[in-house]
Amino acid sequence: MKVLVIGASGTVGSAVRALLLERGHEVVTVGRSGTADVIADMTDPGSVSRMYEQVTGLDAVVCAAGGAVFRPLPQLTAEDFEATFRGKALSQLELVRQGARHVAPQGSFTLISGVLTEEPIVAGAAVSAANGAVEAFARAAAIELAPQRVNVVSPTLVAESADAYGAFFPGIEPVPARRVALAYLRSLEGHATGQIYRVTTP
Amino acid sequence: MKVLVIGASGTVGSAVRALLLERGHEVVTVGRSGTADVIADMTDPGSVSRMYEQVTGLDAVVCAAGGAVFRPLPQLTAEDFEATFRGKALSQLELVRQGARHVAPQGSFTLISGVLTEEPIVAGAAVSAANGAVEAFARAAAIELAPQRVNVVSPTLVAESADAYGAFFPGIEPVPARRVALAYLRSLEGHATGQIYRVTTP
Ligand SMILES: NC(=O)c1ccc[n+]([C@@H]2O[C@H](COP(=O)([O-])OP(=O)(O)OC[C@H]3O[C@@H](n4cnc5c(N)ncnc54)[C@H](OP(=O)(O)O)[C@@H]3O)[C@@H](O)[C@H]2O)c1
Ligand SMILES: NC(=O)c1ccc[n+]([C@@H]2O[C@H](COP(=O)([O-])OP(=O)(O)OC[C@H]3O[C@@H](n4cnc5c(N)ncnc54)[C@H](OP(=O)(O)O)[C@@H]3O)[C@@H](O)[C@H]2O)c1
Repeated sequence: MKVLVIGASGTVGSAVRALLLERGHEVVTVGRSGTADVIADMTDPGSVSRMYEQVTGLDAVVCAAGGAVFRPLPQLTAEDFEATFRGKALSQLELVRQGARHVAPQGSFTLISGVLTEEPIVAGAAVSAANGAVEAFARAAAIELAPQRVNVVSPTLVAESADAYGAFFPGIEPVPARRVALAYLRSLEGHATGQIYRVTTP
Repeated sequence: MKVLVIGASGTVGSAVRALLLERGHEVVTVGRSGTADVIADMTDPGSVSRMYEQVTGLDAVVCAAGGAVFRPLPQLTAEDFEATFRGKALSQLELVRQGARHVAPQGSFTLISGVLTEEPIVAGAAVSAANGAVEAFARAAAIELAPQRVNVVSPTLVAESADAYGAFFPGIEPVPARRVALAYLRSLEGHATGQIYRVTTP
């Protein structure tokens, strides 16, 4: 399959990219900068539109990107909430909204949320809200997109990010990025839709 | 208790207002227009700030308002998603974010989502996303707000709205607004936090 991977240079995205290549898929990488095949900012609907014009014949779009503000509730500003919705929720919804016209009739979308939808941490309220939006959207969009599909991967803390974010997640056992990548593969190659694939320690 | 009721003139809000008055609570009504005690637009953070300046001694804030765009996915625009997030999600988050400084130390917030978080309908994808944000936010904010509390009431189609919205909800048994009001009372007078009170037919 020809798969667009948004955020392919990141912690999660590089594991997803590696697994998809191992499985013989063709990967087109997207990021705002650097060495991505396509330079695009998913928070800007115009940029998303230009991205889809540049790449033809897509079978699937997978997103491993998302900007979010972690800050204790008393310090979160209205702008932090708005930036987090835009960075993680509206941006991913836009990938699906526009992508439905560009991806193959039986193609799929795989978005990313995170454990904070269900299991909150201090400083995570804005992120939880954005994650909840992504998951509820996917359940809803699934019934209107068919035969195209949309699922969400919801990881807990990723082991490769534990140095950066571990302090926010006391006592949480991280999962290797490789396990998160497997959930993307399940979404991509499976036939299910409207699913939330949670990747946590049992 | 002195309770601020946003949307007290609406279908849900008028039932909530009536029940709170029966229970002996003092109700301060809020709306964008008409005969509300306080005129405020919850989608505008400045207006929310002025609202909280005008009312002192609040024990609780309950929200029965929210603007959302129902439209089939292929016709939903980026602006529709944004308007729905603002009208229903960011607005309610802002009530809590600012309200935490104005409501009593043991006070509470009760927000509204709806059945579309879990059970999608055609034309409901933007609304589902906004509802999912509100519910995940409440679970997360609960752990940071304590001893203040925050819960969400999530009704299915309300019987009094069946003429207006029933066509979107084929085969759904509506619930009387009075039952929705009971869930608000449970949030207000109970001591639980981070709960989603779903009001549906069994
Ligand atoms: N890491 C974790 O422990 C963890 C756990 C749960 C959920 N998540 C979620 O997983 C997602 C990825 O996390 P990560 O840790 O892998 O992030 P990361 O290492 O910071 O990588 C993010 C990737 O996305 C790209 N990107 C960021 N914003 C973009 C935008 N607006 N448009 C296009 N590309 C963009 C970045 O490239 P450019 O900078 O070049 O744009 C980069 O390739 C996030 O949504 C995060 O919330 C992560
Ligand atoms: N009715 C249902 O079947 C149903 C089912 C599930 C969920 N819900 C949710 O319940 C909420 C209320 O629904 P409803 O049917 O009762 O609505 P409604 O009858 O249209 O009433 C809405 C109320 O909220 C006020 N309001 C609206 N936007 C506002 C804003 N930005 N700032 C301040 N006040 C505002 C309105 O007064 P002004 O116009 O004067 O501002 C009015 O009092 C909505 O979020 C809806 O999605 C409804």
